[in-house]
Amino acid sequence: MFGVTILGNNSAVPAYNRHPTAQIVTMQDQLLLIDCGEGTQMQIARYKVKWGKIKYIFISHLHGDHYFGLIGLITSMYLLGRKDTLYICGPTALEEIIHLQLKVADTKLPFQLVFIPLREDGVVVDESKYTVECFATQHRIECRGFIIREKKKPRKIDVEKVQQHNIPTSFYERLQHGEDYTNKEGTLIQNESLTVANSLGRSYAFSGDTLYDTNIACKVKNVTLLYHEATYLKNMEENAKLRYHSTTHQAASIAAQGCVDKLIIGHFSSKYEHLEVFLEEAKEIFPNTYLAVEGATHRL
Amino acid sequence: MFGVTILGNNSAVPAYNRHPTAQIVTMQDQLLLIDCGEGTQMQIARYKVKWGKIKYIFISHLHGDHYFGLIGLITSMYLLGRKDTLYICGPTALEEIIHLQLKVADTKLPFQLVFIPLREDGVVVDESKYTVECFATQHRIECRGFIIREKKKPRKIDVEKVQQHNIPTSFYERLQHGEDYTNKEGTLIQNESLTVANSLGRSYAFSGDTLYDTNIACKVKNVTLLYHEATYLKNMEENAKLRYHSTTHQAASIAAQGCVDKLIIGHFSSKYEHLEVFLEEAKEIFPNTYLAVEGATHRL
Repeated sequence: MFGVTILGNNSAVPAYNRHPTAQIVTMQDQLLLIDCGEGTQMQIARYKVKWGKIKYIFISHLHGDHYFGLIGLITSMYLLGRKDTLYICGPTALEEIIHLQLKVADTKLPFQLVFIPLREDGVVVDESKYTVECFATQHRIECRGFIIREKKKPRKIDVEKVQQHNIPTSFYERLQHGEDYTNKEGTLIQNESLTVANSLGRSYAFSGDTLYDTNIACKVKNVTLLYHEATYLKNMEENAKLRYHSTTHQAASIAAQGCVDKLIIGHFSSKYEHLEVFLEEAKEIFPNTYLAVEGATHRL
Repeated sequence: MFGVTILGNNSAVPAYNRHPTAQIVTMQDQLLLIDCGEGTQMQIARYKVKWGKIKYIFISHLHGDHYFGLIGLITSMYLLGRKDTLYICGPTALEEIIHLQLKVADTKLPFQLVFIPLREDGVVVDESKYTVECFATQHRIECRGFIIREKKKPRKIDVEKVQQHNIPTSFYERLQHGEDYTNKEGTLIQNESLTVANSLGRSYAFSGDTLYDTNIACKVKNVTLLYHEATYLKNMEENAKLRYHSTTHQAASIAAQGCVDKLIIGHFSSKYEHLEVFLEEAKEIFPNTYLAVEGATHRL
C-alpha cells in the first residue's frame, strides 16, 4: 500500500480542534512522517499509527507548527524502547536543536539517530522501493517540499517468448530490469520482444509552505497525488503573498499546471472555522481536489 | 480568587487522553503557569484559560513532559499579538533553547521576554500580593518545586477606635501595615488597639518531580494546598526510587508530615489506565487527598 494519512491540517496557532502539520506516508511496510507539529505524538496515538515503523522523518522548515512535536516524538520513542535507526531529514539547524534538548534532559538514545541535512534540491533518500526528493519553496525562511516516488516496477516476463528463445531462468531478473539477451549464436534478442512494461511508479508530492510559485508546478509534474498548502481563501491573495503562503485558487492552479492526478489542500488559517468554501474554490480550478481531513487516508 | 487548575496530570508518554504536566495558578487578576508539557497551548484553549493574563511561567526541570510545550506557547502568544512582558523562571539552559528556536524561525517577539534563572532555594518572584519561592527536589536531573504564598493581608482598621483617637485618615494605610501611632501630645497608641489582624495568607506548593524526600515536608510545612507527584502505586516503591519518582503512600506521607490542609496527587505513570486506586492508597495515609483531574480547579 502507498498512502498518505493526514494527522494535522491547520496552520500556526491550533484552532477548532485542528492540529498543526503532520502527515504519515505509508510505503508498503515502512512509514515516513512529513512534518511534526506540536501534538503529533498524540495524533499518532489517536489514529493508531504504528510508531515503530516510522523510519524517516522529514521536516520542511523550522516554523514551530511544522516541527515543535519532533523532540517529544523522539523522546517517546526512547521511552517506549525503540531500537531501530531513525533518520531525520531537515534544515541543518534542526540537528543542534535536537541534540541540545537531549543533552539537557541527560537522555542517551538507545537507537541511532541519523541526521540528513537538506541542502540542495534532489534525491535525499534512495530506498530499494522508492526515492525521496526535496525541492526548495519560497517561504519566509528556508523551506522545502518533498516528492516520494515509487521506483518503476520491473518489467513482466512474457513466458511464451522466453521459452521459445530458450532463455535460461538465471537471466530472467536482468530481463525484468530491461536488458537485451544475446544467445549462443550471437544473435541479440531485444528486451521489448521478451517482456512487457509494468505500470508506472506512483508518486506523492508535499508542497511545504510556499508562496504561489509556478516553478513548483514543474517540480511536481505528473505526480499521482499533490498536497499543496492553501492557507487562505481566494480573496486573501495579498495577505497570502505578504505571509509567504498560498490561496485555494493558487494551490489548485499549481495542480492544474502540474497535470497531477489528484490534489489535497491543507494548512488552513486559524481564522477560518468552516472549510467547505476552501473545497468549493479549489474545485473551480481543479475539480479533483480534496480537503486535508485529520485521520483520513488517501491511497495513491 | 486563588486557585489551581490542572491542565495535564500524566507523566512522560501521553496516554489514555491524559496530558503531560501543566497547571494554571490564578492569583486574583494574574495567571501563573507551572510547567508546560507538549500540548499545553491546546489544553489552555480547551479549558478557556485567558492566555493574555499569564504573567509568569515556571519550569521545574528540563524533562520534556514538563517543558516541550513552552516554545509553542510563546510562539502562539507572538502570533496572537501579545504585548505584555512575559517572565519565565526555569533552569539556566532553558534560555538558550528558547532563543535558539526563536532564531531559526526568524521570530522577533513583539513583547519582552524576561528570563529568571533558577539557581538557589528562595524567593524568585516578589509581587505586591504574593511571592513565589523555589526549592530543590531530588530528581534524575536538576529539578525544583515552587511555593506561591499570598502575602499576609493588611490589618483591618477598627473605625470606632481610630475616630476616638482622632487619627488622620492619611495614616490609615500605615496602621493597616502594623505601625503604631503617636499623637500630638506624644502619646504612643499601639497598633493592636486600633486594628484587627486579618486572615493568614494562603499558600500553594508544587512538588516538581522527586524521590520521596522528607526535607520536602519541611519546605512545604503548613501550606494550604500541596500538589505532590505520585507517579506509581505503593507496591512500586523500588521502581519509583530507581526512576527518582514517588508513590501514592510517599506523596501522602509528605502531606501528613508537612501538616498541609489538602493534597492533590498527579503525574501518573502511563502504565496505569485507571486512577481510583491512587486515591484510595493516598487516603490511607492522608484522607484529604484529591486526584489531579484535567480541567478541575481547586480553590484555596
